[in-house]
Amino acid sequence: MIVLTCLAGSGIARAQSWQPPPESARCPSVWGAADERGAGNLKSPELVLRAAQLIRIGEVIELGQVLSVDMPINPIRQFDLHTKRTTMNPQSNRRGSNEELVIAEIGQVGTQFDGFAHQTIGDSMYNCVKVSEAATRTGFTRLGIQNVGAVVTRGVLIDIAALKGVDMLPDTYEITVQDLEQALSKQRVQLRRGDAVVIHTGWGRLWGKDNARYQATNPGIGVAASEWLARQSPILVGADTAPVEVNPNPDRQLSLPTHQIMLVVNGVHLLENMKLDELAAKRVYEFAIVVEPLKIQGATGSSVAPIAIH
Amino acid sequence: MIVLTCLAGSGIARAQSWQPPPESARCPSVWGAADERGAGNLKSPELVLRAAQLIRIGEVIELGQVLSVDMPINPIRQFDLHTKRTTMNPQSNRRGSNEELVIAEIGQVGTQFDGFAHQTIGDSMYNCVKVSEAATRTGFTRLGIQNVGAVVTRGVLIDIAALKGVDMLPDTYEITVQDLEQALSKQRVQLRRGDAVVIHTGWGRLWGKDNARYQATNPGIGVAASEWLARQSPILVGADTAPVEVNPNPDRQLSLPTHQIMLVVNGVHLLENMKLDELAAKRVYEFAIVVEPLKIQGATGSSVAPIAIH
Amino acid sequence: MIVLTCLAGSGIARAQSWQPPPESARCPSVWGAADERGAGNLKSPELVLRAAQLIRIGEVIELGQVLSVDMPINPIRQFDLHTKRTTMNPQSNRRGSNEELVIAEIGQVGTQFDGFAHQTIGDSMYNCVKVSEAATRTGFTRLGIQNVGAVVTRGVLIDIAALKGVDMLPDTYEITVQDLEQALSKQRVQLRRGDAVVIHTGWGRLWGKDNARYQATNPGIGVAASEWLARQSPILVGADTAPVEVNPNPDRQLSLPTHQIMLVVNGVHLLENMKLDELAAKRVYEFAIVVEPLKIQGATGSSVAPIAIH
Amino acid sequence: MIVLTCLAGSGIARAQSWQPPPESARCPSVWGAADERGAGNLKSPELVLRAAQLIRIGEVIELGQVLSVDMPINPIRQFDLHTKRTTMNPQSNRRGSNEELVIAEIGQVGTQFDGFAHQTIGDSMYNCVKVSEAATRTGFTRLGIQNVGAVVTRGVLIDIAALKGVDMLPDTYEITVQDLEQALSKQRVQLRRGDAVVIHTGWGRLWGKDNARYQATNPGIGVAASEWLARQSPILVGADTAPVEVNPNPDRQLSLPTHQIMLVVNGVHLLENMKLDELAAKRVYEFAIVVEPLKIQGATGSSVAPIAIH
Repeated sequence: MIVLTCLAGSGIARAQSWQPPPESARCPSVWGAADERGAGNLKSPELVLRAAQLIRIGEVIELGQVLSVDMPINPIRQFDLHTKRTTMNPQSNRRGSNEELVIAEIGQVGTQFDGFAHQTIGDSMYNCVKVSEAATRTGFTRLGIQNVGAVVTRGVLIDIAALKGVDMLPDTYEITVQDLEQALSKQRVQLRRGDAVVIHTGWGRLWGKDNARYQATNPGIGVAASEWLARQSPILVGADTAPVEVNPNPDRQLSLPTHQIMLVVNGVHLLENMKLDELAAKRVYEFAIVVEPLKIQGATGSSVAPIAIH
Repeated sequence: MIVLTCLAGSGIARAQSWQPPPESARCPSVWGAADERGAGNLKSPELVLRAAQLIRIGEVIELGQVLSVDMPINPIRQFDLHTKRTTMNPQSNRRGSNEELVIAEIGQVGTQFDGFAHQTIGDSMYNCVKVSEAATRTGFTRLGIQNVGAVVTRGVLIDIAALKGVDMLPDTYEITVQDLEQALSKQRVQLRRGDAVVIHTGWGRLWGKDNARYQATNPGIGVAASEWLARQSPILVGADTAPVEVNPNPDRQLSLPTHQIMLVVNGVHLLENMKLDELAAKRVYEFAIVVEPLKIQGATGSSVAPIAIH
Repeated sequence: MIVLTCLAGSGIARAQSWQPPPESARCPSVWGAADERGAGNLKSPELVLRAAQLIRIGEVIELGQVLSVDMPINPIRQFDLHTKRTTMNPQSNRRGSNEELVIAEIGQVGTQFDGFAHQTIGDSMYNCVKVSEAATRTGFTRLGIQNVGAVVTRGVLIDIAALKGVDMLPDTYEITVQDLEQALSKQRVQLRRGDAVVIHTGWGRLWGKDNARYQATNPGIGVAASEWLARQSPILVGADTAPVEVNPNPDRQLSLPTHQIMLVVNGVHLLENMKLDELAAKRVYEFAIVVEPLKIQGATGSSVAPIAIH
Repeated sequence: MIVLTCLAGSGIARAQSWQPPPESARCPSVWGAADERGAGNLKSPELVLRAAQLIRIGEVIELGQVLSVDMPINPIRQFDLHTKRTTMNPQSNRRGSNEELVIAEIGQVGTQFDGFAHQTIGDSMYNCVKVSEAATRTGFTRLGIQNVGAVVTRGVLIDIAALKGVDMLPDTYEITVQDLEQALSKQRVQLRRGDAVVIHTGWGRLWGKDNARYQATNPGIGVAASEWLARQSPILVGADTAPVEVNPNPDRQLSLPTHQIMLVVNGVHLLENMKLDELAAKRVYEFAIVVEPLKIQGATGSSVAPIAIH
């Protein structure tokens, strides 16, 4: 028995904490074999009206960080902006025109909305669309972000930092199902089908101030909380961290499993690197959220500047 | 006398139809010498609530065109997307990640929201900020689009194509003040301070179908209608054409004067290349509009995917 | 018999004119199973000295076209240059610095030197290196152009346009083995192992003047002449056309077979879009050639500005 | 007198050590008011033949570093390479084609050849061409690198590290005129008009191994040695460091004055970040050098892969 306990404790005797479900268990999706929209199918006039009813004082709170060369960024990505200074038109009204070239993985930098072409289990994406079949040099023929459209729904902030009484959760804290339930209970709100669920960890206060730490690790949901959240049928799950989920995962055999659980298995979008300080400080737990992904043909996601309205 | 009338009508005897006002006549702006927001200062909870009250059936109508290599684009700009295919993470859950590099004047392609660093009269921009002082290699130190924030206000569609009983206005038709007034009267709506004014010309039906014609010329407002509109104090003026205004201007000495009237003189934003077919077909003349420019540090504008909600 | 002749003439009864050899027939290469240099292995001090002896009058003739936005370019590639204007250093000597961002498939634009990672038969490149194994997001782990080094050898111009008495060969003229032999005989030069063979078609006079025609089709060597040339063991084969070879191939079942014959099967480099007018006009048939590919880690080729010295 | 000597030696009593000459003292250039080529005018068949006579054993020594994401680079520049994997052509020979997008200040990265549009004194470049007049968004209308052509001339290595008996000169060592003269004397070579002068500091051994130190400071020529070298009328001056010259300059009021002395005042090219280890180890002090700048229209310089032949 000592031996057994010991094995259990060491993890040797346990299976891996989570395994991606086989294709047979997740395809076709509940929305049909041809579906490319996943939880986006939940969008409806009812959700829009429910959101609109939350607009009571007319305040707009921005949830997007500034896109700048000083922001934290995944080292395999870039954000470069080159000013193209004035082209002066020859007419007599001396109209000059400025613009700028931007070179960036624009779908995957800054506050960003993840589409379903972004993540895979092996070669397989949402609804078992294959990368090897859908990827071209200039975009994906299926699951492109241009199909998603704007998200207008009820947003719910779940403030785990406040629940724990801290400004910022510890570096690799895994948010539990109990945490979520306690915070919702404390905030007196309930999740509903079609919500946008937004989790405040406080980690966003490192943005632009300690980018190295912001990127190195972060607190967030893990496998259990992700699966619990997916069962609530949200359209998207967001947070004030780069991957939304705890990083690294406590199970070192797993690389960002929430990405697979949400995007690949359940067709739920992620909204990363949110700016949540103002929303949390004002204790706005329910609000209308509007997210407008750029309609980039065949892209895996979009940088966005979402807002909460209440 | 006949001769004189004829000359006046032909424009031969007249001076240039419009001249950019001198700095002394436009600076400091009505919002103060340090202001960078122009008509954005009109934003208020009242405007948001007024917009929210227009959400009655919960329908979201997209006003943004798809960003693709097949769209019409100014020949000095580009939109290129390069798929970066799967990076497979080494962990056992076989998580693959796709993204894409986008190279584009992302502030000035597709459906786009113009900020005040975009246009000049000589070296001078809105509120007499000088390009030579504010431009750096990596953006503008003043008037950057990141300052604007989302626009949530009442949108008003003025359908000039419908007024004229055509699918599409003629190639270089200049919309008059009378046209605007008649259309508003016919639609039974009135403009209010802080509105987003959106003009339907029908030109958008050429988008992606006859890009050469879409870019070559287009109908739209000219100097008179622009000045009349500016006096109504909108936050933005948009249309289903590349420059919002008639192009070329009937006065060949003028290069896109509406750009100067709106952005430089009055601090009113432009919203270009809108997708207005659905809105016009459904005769939705009043609605809540939400526009979320990407918060690109120091940029002249932003590609956007705005929506109407009603 | 009439029928048979007719069938032979129409090609219906013939097999395809050429088929890529199976891996068993071309791997390992004659330079060994680990080799990445192909005909580059021919480089030697003897070849360099032989080339140097051809420098008799000290004239340098440029063989590279200007890289500009006005040049003919494959539509799936780009060449964009964005001036980055003066950064003024703060010190008292007022030193300003200009540079420019270039966005281009720099290995495959303008006068260009093809490396072995550029072309495949299926998934297989020179010496049966597999794309699927050697390609990363940021270059090839094998066959990269940085391994090639400069080519300094005897260059031989074969002027087929002059042989035929024309300024420019017809649009899709396939240069035959007999053409090559006759031109060499007329020019009184013989090919030697390790030469750089350069073919003048006259097509280069369209460069920058009629880019559409330059790109649409072009005269050049076909399968038979390519195989004959490969047997002469050159280090490279070049021409004043985009693909060096006739395009399209007379056998419509073949896509640029010379690319496979030279780069994949025989490990011989191609030098495309050469500027050969001056060399041909001066009847310089033997010369020292120097080609210096940029040493781009893991790249498929390099834009170059080669010279002939005689 | 002791005091005076001391003051002179310490520099305390002196004014700034060097000032850029006024336009009146340097324009028009000795090559005429319209000249854009500077020391490039020295190129001649005689120089080429003189170089060719130095090719005695047929060895080619590469003087260019590999262009890679791992190389030292000025932080305001970038070198990114994105593999564009196989486009498979539909014909039956299964020809696949790979290429790569490169995003870089390609004229000013890696081993690089500086043209005259690169540097200024205030707004003024070589021969008093003004940046404000010659710069466009897409290149310079004058002084562009495409005008330079290949350099084929006698190269002379001056090995200062060997003179001092060290592998690498100290971090900010300023090479003196006496150093140059002593090294040349020791090496038994004399400079001649039209030479390419190449200085070995040993600093190149840090390349790719300690990039931070390679970029932070470096030994090299200062004002006195630069002016002495310019008087020898070389076509170019190169070294195994990023700026060729000592950095920072001992006079902190000067920002890279050799750049102005060579490029702006004297029209002499610079060749930076050379790979000189092999040349120095083999004590090859005289050789033919061939440098082939890419002919980029309107560019300030070119990445190159030069060679020495002897």
